Amino acid sequence: MTSTIDERDRSDVTTADEATHRVQAAASAARRAARRLAQLATADKNSALHHLADALVTATDQIVAANDIDLARGRDQGMPDGLQDRLRLTPERVQAIAQALRDLAALPDPIGEVVRGSTLANGLQLRQVRVPMGVVGMVYESRPNVTVDAAGLGLKSGNAMILRGGSAAARTNATIVDVLRTALVDDGLPADAVSLLEGGHEDVDALITARGLVDLVIPRGSDRLIQAVVQGATVPVIETGVGNCHVYVDAAADLDQAVRIALNSKTHRPSVCNAAESLLVHTAVADEVLPALYDALTAAGVVLHTDEPASRIAQAHGSAYLPVTEEDFATEYLALEMSVAVVPDLTAAIEHIDRYGSGHTEVIVTEDRAAARRFTAEVDAAVVMVNASSRFTDGGEFGFGAEIGISTQKLHARGPMGLQELTSTKWIVEGDGQIRG
Amino acid sequence: MTSTIDERDRSDVTTADEATHRVQAAASAARRAARRLAQLATADKNSALHHLADALVTATDQIVAANDIDLARGRDQGMPDGLQDRLRLTPERVQAIAQALRDLAALPDPIGEVVRGSTLANGLQLRQVRVPMGVVGMVYESRPNVTVDAAGLGLKSGNAMILRGGSAAARTNATIVDVLRTALVDDGLPADAVSLLEGGHEDVDALITARGLVDLVIPRGSDRLIQAVVQGATVPVIETGVGNCHVYVDAAADLDQAVRIALNSKTHRPSVCNAAESLLVHTAVADEVLPALYDALTAAGVVLHTDEPASRIAQAHGSAYLPVTEEDFATEYLALEMSVAVVPDLTAAIEHIDRYGSGHTEVIVTEDRAAARRFTAEVDAAVVMVNASSRFTDGGEFGFGAEIGISTQKLHARGPMGLQELTSTKWIVEGDGQIRG
Repeated sequence: MTSTIDERDRSDVTTADEATHRVQAAASAARRAARRLAQLATADKNSALHHLADALVTATDQIVAANDIDLARGRDQGMPDGLQDRLRLTPERVQAIAQALRDLAALPDPIGEVVRGSTLANGLQLRQVRVPMGVVGMVYESRPNVTVDAAGLGLKSGNAMILRGGSAAARTNATIVDVLRTALVDDGLPADAVSLLEGGHEDVDALITARGLVDLVIPRGSDRLIQAVVQGATVPVIETGVGNCHVYVDAAADLDQAVRIALNSKTHRPSVCNAAESLLVHTAVADEVLPALYDALTAAGVVLHTDEPASRIAQAHGSAYLPVTEEDFATEYLALEMSVAVVPDLTAAIEHIDRYGSGHTEVIVTEDRAAARRFTAEVDAAVVMVNASSRFTDGGEFGFGAEIGISTQKLHARGPMGLQELTSTKWIVEGDGQIRG
Repeated sequence: MTSTIDERDRSDVTTADEATHRVQAAASAARRAARRLAQLATADKNSALHHLADALVTATDQIVAANDIDLARGRDQGMPDGLQDRLRLTPERVQAIAQALRDLAALPDPIGEVVRGSTLANGLQLRQVRVPMGVVGMVYESRPNVTVDAAGLGLKSGNAMILRGGSAAARTNATIVDVLRTALVDDGLPADAVSLLEGGHEDVDALITARGLVDLVIPRGSDRLIQAVVQGATVPVIETGVGNCHVYVDAAADLDQAVRIALNSKTHRPSVCNAAESLLVHTAVADEVLPALYDALTAAGVVLHTDEPASRIAQAHGSAYLPVTEEDFATEYLALEMSVAVVPDLTAAIEHIDRYGSGHTEVIVTEDRAAARRFTAEVDAAVVMVNASSRFTDGGEFGFGAEIGISTQKLHARGPMGLQELTSTKWIVEGDGQIRG
């Protein structure tokens, strides 16, 4: 995998072999910790989460000081303001991060759930119970709250976490993890429940290929990072993918509702994966609704890339537009930009989404039951919605209480991922001496 | 990945690029078929399975003739009798394979199950429904019934299957797939619901790296094949892994039961993954039970590799033994061989299994409740059993009605895999215009 400019600094002194050795040692230590974490009572995990929250708050000055060092280095390297803001930890933000741990403690424990079971004709009693995944690696960029969230989610679900954050937050993450590990030990828990890899890109390479030592890797961040992990990993991965999300305004849509939904889906928080990137409008309502959509979107600063019919309507209405390209339809802008196409019918809308969608979130606005049922049945995405903003694809909004990311793959987890997705299952078979004939 | 001798014949004329192109075309065709299969009614899938069964029986002579060609080629290349038997299709075996499709038709349809759901405070109604995975690749060796089983399981679960069988069964598989595809078309279904890759190892390489075109790959066969796929795949894989299974005879075991369970676990069908490979005996009962175990196992032809205490008992009893090596403990013999170790206590047994086990099936024989509870809680394997033969780890035995394989990984599926494991889920969100504030 290619390294970023700042990571080449770190990798100058790290050889691949040394990284492999170090990562395998970390993974073995995590495995030992995971065996203990798997047996922890719910009450002990919850009280540990509270202790971790307290420890973070107590260490606020230390954490903010480390963060200041990272911010200064970032500024020296020309980090844009937006990224600096994502990196920055204030005392208030530390409080919020600590509160998230307390909120986790309040959630139900997924471990020990009996998923299914039966008694066989031969008398064997089967039950499939939920167990921790074991050792989970998380590879992420920039935002230091992810360090704490991941540690908390891991502990709650009985997993040992190996974290590898972005180098921009190196000092912040190191300090946070130190605080967490010390608090864990104070609580009689293994420090290796949370560990941090601080080397260069070889650390990531070693982590994602440590199959058998690491049970799962979750990449979070840019598409480049996610793809690098997905392509290079032999450890099972959950792809938290690109959201090239569509809002389709059907012939039978409530048009005012359509404008509100499209606007919210695009502009509520444009830089995240569940923001809508593309607007499809049924030809029967295009003349009527596109002007209102254009007004709303351009007032919010959205740059529109329109196909021919949509361009004509824009021109006639005096709205600014750029002619759309093939590439636009496939683009996750993560910004105030949107592609617009007029489609002849529902079938064409479904085919367009099938062709360009990334399997994240797809929305239809319609009052026609048959259209809603057909759209939700035929569109192949993690989340298909009728008459709601795409911004609802979110673990918090779904009531999971926590979110690791939004999976766009089909294996193991699909859509918003909560604690349950950090678990596996095992079968327990209780017999009285049964053998096979 | 390295090719086997017979596969190098096929790969002489296939370049990697040409294979990639061909496989991607097959995957695209499968994707188109999968879209239709996902919408099929249960009754239509079931009647199609019956038609496929009928078509196979009608084509018995054709299939057996093709099989004879493969067998002749195998004999010419020195194929051992055991492998010839696995390859051979008689009219009776064709009937049995067809019956398996009819049995599949009788199983419940996993598609459309509502897995969970809720109504949010804001009125949004969420439900997570079971959907087909989409396009599933299966890479397997030798046994032509896997061709039919995979096609049937795929159809029942609404998936399009891309099959790549072993070259030993090339003509048999090609004929079977022709028969199936023709029958599908006669039934108004897409032929590309089942397709066969007939190239060399580049076909496998292309299939397992067709991420985005293929949703899941399942390797079945030798550990070498499975590892080659696991290491080389960017498409999500389910590892149907090695079974280095243990039977642990606890201090509180019913010793007669222990002998029956150990014997059945080792000898009922030694060449499969759920056969026990290793026997652990608590030191407190070693003197009493090992002689009986030795008698039973050696009478069945099992070669024993024993640690020092176990060797002393064997010697005193006049049983044949070989001194065990470290490597023996880690070996999945898949034959009438077994390693034997005497352990000081339950903790040592758990640690031994933790160190050498492959996460497949682990058995404790005990009448002590605390020991049983501790073993099942602490041993990290797909299936943990109390007082039952390891041979019960099987989709048919578990009542799944079908089996794709036994997963030893923790993601998505763990233990015996049935129809449900060939599915994914999607969220359907029904709203009335909700947007985020």
